[in-house]
Amino acid sequence: MKPNVLIIGAGGVAHVVAHKCAQSNKQFGDIHLASRTLGKCQAIIDSVHAKGSLQRPGALHAHALDALDVAATEALIRDTDARIVINVGSAFLNMSVLQACLQTGAAYIDTAIHEEPDKICEAPPWYGNYEWKRREACEAAGVTAILGAGFDPGVVNAYARLACDEYFDRVDAIDIIDINAGRHDRYFATNFDPEVNFREFTGTVWSWQDKQWTPSKMFEYRKDWNLPVVGKQTAYLTGHDELHSLSQNLDVPNIRFWMGFSEHYINVFTVLKNIGMLSEKPVRTAEGQEVIPLKVLKAVLPDPASLAPAYTGKTCIGNMMRGEKDGRERTVFIYNICDHAENYREIGSQAISYTAGVPAVAAALLIADGTWDVRRMVNVEELPPRPFLALMAKMGLTTWVREGERDVLLEEQAETVGV
Amino acid sequence: MKPNVLIIGAGGVAHVVAHKCAQSNKQFGDIHLASRTLGKCQAIIDSVHAKGSLQRPGALHAHALDALDVAATEALIRDTDARIVINVGSAFLNMSVLQACLQTGAAYIDTAIHEEPDKICEAPPWYGNYEWKRREACEAAGVTAILGAGFDPGVVNAYARLACDEYFDRVDAIDIIDINAGRHDRYFATNFDPEVNFREFTGTVWSWQDKQWTPSKMFEYRKDWNLPVVGKQTAYLTGHDELHSLSQNLDVPNIRFWMGFSEHYINVFTVLKNIGMLSEKPVRTAEGQEVIPLKVLKAVLPDPASLAPAYTGKTCIGNMMRGEKDGRERTVFIYNICDHAENYREIGSQAISYTAGVPAVAAALLIADGTWDVRRMVNVEELPPRPFLALMAKMGLTTWVREGERDVLLEEQAETVGV
Repeated sequence: MKPNVLIIGAGGVAHVVAHKCAQSNKQFGDIHLASRTLGKCQAIIDSVHAKGSLQRPGALHAHALDALDVAATEALIRDTDARIVINVGSAFLNMSVLQACLQTGAAYIDTAIHEEPDKICEAPPWYGNYEWKRREACEAAGVTAILGAGFDPGVVNAYARLACDEYFDRVDAIDIIDINAGRHDRYFATNFDPEVNFREFTGTVWSWQDKQWTPSKMFEYRKDWNLPVVGKQTAYLTGHDELHSLSQNLDVPNIRFWMGFSEHYINVFTVLKNIGMLSEKPVRTAEGQEVIPLKVLKAVLPDPASLAPAYTGKTCIGNMMRGEKDGRERTVFIYNICDHAENYREIGSQAISYTAGVPAVAAALLIADGTWDVRRMVNVEELPPRPFLALMAKMGLTTWVREGERDVLLEEQAETVGV
Repeated sequence: MKPNVLIIGAGGVAHVVAHKCAQSNKQFGDIHLASRTLGKCQAIIDSVHAKGSLQRPGALHAHALDALDVAATEALIRDTDARIVINVGSAFLNMSVLQACLQTGAAYIDTAIHEEPDKICEAPPWYGNYEWKRREACEAAGVTAILGAGFDPGVVNAYARLACDEYFDRVDAIDIIDINAGRHDRYFATNFDPEVNFREFTGTVWSWQDKQWTPSKMFEYRKDWNLPVVGKQTAYLTGHDELHSLSQNLDVPNIRFWMGFSEHYINVFTVLKNIGMLSEKPVRTAEGQEVIPLKVLKAVLPDPASLAPAYTGKTCIGNMMRGEKDGRERTVFIYNICDHAENYREIGSQAISYTAGVPAVAAALLIADGTWDVRRMVNVEELPPRPFLALMAKMGLTTWVREGERDVLLEEQAETVGV
């Protein structure tokens, strides 16, 4: 029997996950969506039908759920008989959804690290503060939990593992680079949940350098990168989820994350940060209402999903990796290029949501067919990368490898690196 | 018997008004302060005592009041036996406080035009929409109501009247210029209530040009002015309260208001406006809380009064007036220079609050001694300007006149212009 899937969340990534589950629903049973706002789930279901995304006739159901409520989530998992839960709701939900999976035996997948509302940029390693405390419980219960199975974290973790396995005898440095060279028609917008987006940058940002955690401030370090398709791009050193598992799981002394920002983004961010609008701490208005500035900012900024219709241009996300192979220095850039307008034509999404959502569904398919059904808690770099990357190539995310001046598709290069 | 005074509000301007009333309390009875937050009134009273501002021993009392509640305000006026009410609370309170004065016979003074929370940059003339609808009621009740008796509106209205009376046979243009060349130690702050400050600029701004209301957008027109003390300053055409009475009360075809803004202010304003944080319309957060972005912004920005300790530099506010006298073209700039640090040393305030508060107390003193106790509703330009300007010179705000290269004190120039 094919496993029923429960998708938690109804934002831009949930939209992609629903469409991609539908496109592969020969391998799934019923598809369920749950979020606080029932109407948002229903809107996604309507779009799945409108786009004709279902591979075969199948059921999609919408549910209202406060996923912070473990008992309610557990009940919904049982009611829907979901065997795979794809959590693409707010980053605040991970631990409660994971708990519900532990209690029901359902497999768990997420795409971003757990956060507590009142804490930002916590001390490393982040997974150690929350998710990894449930490792033993997952092992004991035989529950598969795949953490950070989006693009970054997620696919970039698989790229790192692939490089260590096949491209290098020794890796000295992994620089993960995330560039969105797209344009939309709004004055300013974040590409995913503004609350989560800004929280990444308002405190200390952590890098793994010389086998140590190194703190810095956002926008303190910048570097220009010459990249395929998108050309020369400026990116800034920042902290990111995947550093916190890769540093612990791979023997690589330098792992850094670089994110591209326009001058405009930096200006808006700087203004908002300096005046206090990025604060996660409550303030009181003159009228006596207690509000969290960052949540109000989220309410005035565009819903990232709403950017999709007017989004053009491409993203480039990949790992620049430097090390040694057969006694020679080697530098390899493993990457993906995604096109906003193409993603919109296919399923009505922009590329940031698309790149985050497709890998989560690929992970679900690999659990469904047993390949990744490891019955314990893992990060993506702990799993075999080839089946994951091969499956995603079929689902819309191809992997390229640049070495020197040459760009080749990973699938076509397989033999040349001796696998 | 000396009249008791009731001050409504407990912000930066109320602080100045309380100190200046105290400094002249030989001419007043008891001084009462009322605002929503009792503690803010008490803090002002404490600072009056700490600075030794009382001219003679006298009582100051704090009251908690929602001044939108006319019955409560009326009761407080009766309980305190206040004969003069100085309304320096939020611009939303004018009509309710005025109504309470009408019902008790107390004189009314304010420093800014009435606003309704859900309307910004209304159609001209603004006074016609609210205050002037009570003109007949004031006349019938014999209530003195002096509208806009701060610096601008207020003192600049008196400058305009003075110029029409004494400096010109015909005035062609009045350009009111408001420059704050001061510096404080915060990243960004407005000089008075952020909510009111931003509301002035987010919609259409109105100027009186060729005897007609002319709409424009904020920051559409800029002009560099060479001014006394503060030197060359860039100011932007904007709408302002005083245009709406001066245009109706004086026969001057062009009356414009120019406000100085730094590039930094404009950048912050532009970001906040474009992302929607200046909106007076409610939004709903993801958690379902309904909030008004502008009120949240006010809550995160510094309280203007808190800028005072670190404020240095000077303000220059005045009227550049062009016309004809005795058959010859004439240009005169009547102005004041105020020093943030001096104001702070005197009464613990910055110059923006100081220049707004001192004139209101001067108006109260002129009501108390009968000079301005006209028992009807007036704007400042309808009253004799000389006693007002002479009194303010003694209270800390001197008036200068620049003509050609020469700057002289108004008091010293009196004879040369033949009064």
